[in-house]
Amino acid sequence: MTRTAAIIGGGIIGGGWAARFLLNGWDVRVYDPDPEAERKITEVLVNARRSLPGLTDVALPAEGCLSFGASLAEVVADAELIVEAVPERLDVKRAVYAEIEAANTDGIIASSTSGIMPSDLQAELAYPGRLIVAHPFNPVYLLPLVELVGGAQTDAAHIEKAKGIYSDLGMYPLHCRVEIEGFLSDRLQEALWREALWLLKDEVATAEEIDAAVAYGPGLRWAQMGTMQTFHLAGGEGGMRAMLAMFGPCLKWPWTKLMDVPELTDDFVEMVGDQCDTQAGALSPRDLEVIRDDNLVGIIRSLKAQNWGAGAVAQAHDRRLRAGTVQAARAADLPADQPVLTARRVVPLDWTDYNGHMTESRYLHAFADATDRFMEIIGCDADYIASGGSYFTAETHIRHLDEVHAGARIDITTRVILGEGKKMHLWHEMREGDRLLASGEHFLLHVSLETRKPTPPSEAIAAALVRFAAGHADLPAPEGLGRAIGGPR
Amino acid sequence: MTRTAAIIGGGIIGGGWAARFLLNGWDVRVYDPDPEAERKITEVLVNARRSLPGLTDVALPAEGCLSFGASLAEVVADAELIVEAVPERLDVKRAVYAEIEAANTDGIIASSTSGIMPSDLQAELAYPGRLIVAHPFNPVYLLPLVELVGGAQTDAAHIEKAKGIYSDLGMYPLHCRVEIEGFLSDRLQEALWREALWLLKDEVATAEEIDAAVAYGPGLRWAQMGTMQTFHLAGGEGGMRAMLAMFGPCLKWPWTKLMDVPELTDDFVEMVGDQCDTQAGALSPRDLEVIRDDNLVGIIRSLKAQNWGAGAVAQAHDRRLRAGTVQAARAADLPADQPVLTARRVVPLDWTDYNGHMTESRYLHAFADATDRFMEIIGCDADYIASGGSYFTAETHIRHLDEVHAGARIDITTRVILGEGKKMHLWHEMREGDRLLASGEHFLLHVSLETRKPTPPSEAIAAALVRFAAGHADLPAPEGLGRAIGGPR
Repeated sequence: MTRTAAIIGGGIIGGGWAARFLLNGWDVRVYDPDPEAERKITEVLVNARRSLPGLTDVALPAEGCLSFGASLAEVVADAELIVEAVPERLDVKRAVYAEIEAANTDGIIASSTSGIMPSDLQAELAYPGRLIVAHPFNPVYLLPLVELVGGAQTDAAHIEKAKGIYSDLGMYPLHCRVEIEGFLSDRLQEALWREALWLLKDEVATAEEIDAAVAYGPGLRWAQMGTMQTFHLAGGEGGMRAMLAMFGPCLKWPWTKLMDVPELTDDFVEMVGDQCDTQAGALSPRDLEVIRDDNLVGIIRSLKAQNWGAGAVAQAHDRRLRAGTVQAARAADLPADQPVLTARRVVPLDWTDYNGHMTESRYLHAFADATDRFMEIIGCDADYIASGGSYFTAETHIRHLDEVHAGARIDITTRVILGEGKKMHLWHEMREGDRLLASGEHFLLHVSLETRKPTPPSEAIAAALVRFAAGHADLPAPEGLGRAIGGPR
Repeated sequence: MTRTAAIIGGGIIGGGWAARFLLNGWDVRVYDPDPEAERKITEVLVNARRSLPGLTDVALPAEGCLSFGASLAEVVADAELIVEAVPERLDVKRAVYAEIEAANTDGIIASSTSGIMPSDLQAELAYPGRLIVAHPFNPVYLLPLVELVGGAQTDAAHIEKAKGIYSDLGMYPLHCRVEIEGFLSDRLQEALWREALWLLKDEVATAEEIDAAVAYGPGLRWAQMGTMQTFHLAGGEGGMRAMLAMFGPCLKWPWTKLMDVPELTDDFVEMVGDQCDTQAGALSPRDLEVIRDDNLVGIIRSLKAQNWGAGAVAQAHDRRLRAGTVQAARAADLPADQPVLTARRVVPLDWTDYNGHMTESRYLHAFADATDRFMEIIGCDADYIASGGSYFTAETHIRHLDEVHAGARIDITTRVILGEGKKMHLWHEMREGDRLLASGEHFLLHVSLETRKPTPPSEAIAAALVRFAAGHADLPAPEGLGRAIGGPR
């Protein structure tokens, strides 16, 4: 049975809500008098369809129906949930609610306001109990947080029902139990934002520098633990209590514009310490450090794949480490009568399973990187690929011979079994020290990136490949070469 | 030629510095009169060795030597860089500098202070030009940000030299050009922290709720774009200027304790808008949205692998989506005379290369997940694995038959080629609609997780496997089964 959400206001937030509901199988009806609303929502939907369905490792339900109504009344009629996402003006919002009440008497009215108190929003409603705040974060289709806030007259059952709805949408409903302007998240964001505006106003830093001060440091922590837990770990073995003892005096110093701070009485320190202990549960600061480090490695490496922010810094570090080593050499500098070193690296934390062993598919990841490195050695590098040619892998055969843990240094050496015309047949061996961990046999074809069809490589690449093929042909055949699963038949 | 850093103070920060220098090949000498310092630093090093070397995709240089000195003078003698990481008290820091000056006259003195002005730190030094602030973030061995701040008497050449040193350590040196208490990052963090303390003091929220308000929403954004760029995108097509027009009035509202805010004059709005445009460079808000979404998907999926924070929310969503579908069925509910559906999902953004095609190793990732699902179907589920048995993949053969893009829905069906005793031979086919993308042939052995040696599976698993093997034996042999690379020879 399809469920229906009505959305009043089709801007960035309304559009984001529309996308999240639709992609989770709800029908969505939108009302916005702006003639551009349909175009804008469609653009948000393009972004959402690109990113959200792959966030899950299970297919989402079939997408719901999107429609645009000519009147608010038509859109909200019979809707189970009515999302209000109009500008942050109390008079505008109240006028919208009056129109909603005339056309729908039992749907939950969920305001997307960033900070107006629900008690103020609901004050003039005939049925105020069904008004809640459900405050999301841009992009609404990806970020899980939604703050749920009830006003003085909100019916608690509607908050409970809303928790279920937003959980079903893949979100994290955070019930803000005490009503306060700005709720929780925006109070914290707004504090940071106002401080940032002063830094700009006082010409202490540019917008770019202010962002760097977050995204390369504290922001990476905040993606996985908030300020409280982060500072609990800054206290070392002593946790938050030790942190407050160390940095408590700094609260009196002008390290920010807000100089009015709570007194760190013994009772308050105990309360904060106790809450951090409760939050940590059975996890010691040492346990949490390990979790934090796993998280940070995963986050930074995910940004590395995008060459963005902290990940771009890590890529630059790799380039510096590689420069001047054998890992930066070209074909002419490498002997052709022995296997070529194509990788020397450590198994990262994000390549392992819950036992700390390297995961099956990361063996292929490492071999594929080694193939890329071998391609670079023979001249099929980024510039060549940009000119329209590359090698595509057609077939792969991996033998998993031994296990390896995160933190182990692995080497991969590569032999050319066949290198002629469009064909390249490689044999990789992965070792930790002398211990053979896996072999990877790969058959690749040189292709035109335009036609996606096989074509011969450049003459320089062909020559470099033939040189290694000829040199490696004199080595004894590797054990396991040409093997098929299930043995000979 | 090995470089040497001296570290004065072996707490969380000093220990983190020691780890970063050591793992990047520097020798490190530590001085800390605390008899526990050596144990504490060793524990930080254990964490760092576990996490940092795998952050790079190239091996780090050989680790440097760590030593602990009996006196400060012994430790700093001849050191190229002297890291001061003692408590945040001006008198304590100045006393340390006096001792340093007596034993070393030319190394850079780099204070780790979180916010004391370098002009104050250097005021009593005989050679004040070599004192800088280099403010890092915990864990120092993983987070790239280091704020560099010079005082009134700092020699600019030392700031430049320090930039080179920290870049070589894989860090992002952010030069804070204007000296101010708290520098940039701590002013922003401290603003948020003081607000959080008020929320605790006023009993609006618990430590855990305050953290949730960050880690499930804004924190995910801050890991990859700071407040300025994030709000630039909140303004939609109009960027920061539109955002200020929308939310400017809220600056007068009590959304945070800091009510003293800069006036949004036309000039100021222009300045902020211009700086955000400069920061964006050639990237439109639309371009930046796509980059942000790529980053967020990568970050959330990296946390999903850890089942933490926003990643735990995504895992819970998967479980809800799976419940009640064929993807939650057990062996007895599935016919044995046809291939089994073992995956139905969308290719996520973080599985693709720069062209948006699924990366080679993610084919194996998807097949390995399908294998896990088939194991679950026959009863080799999490509970069984916890009891000590599982299947390990011994061999894999993949044929890449066609390309597929991010966002495409893929299905994997699985056939049992052989299932008897310890052996399981599977054949996966991956399709987008009717289009065959790849085949995966896998040979697995049932093992004891204690001995890591082959053993027979439980009788229930053996029976379920035999049932599928018998049913699938009547199907025609798949094209490509048993194939070896290079064809028959």
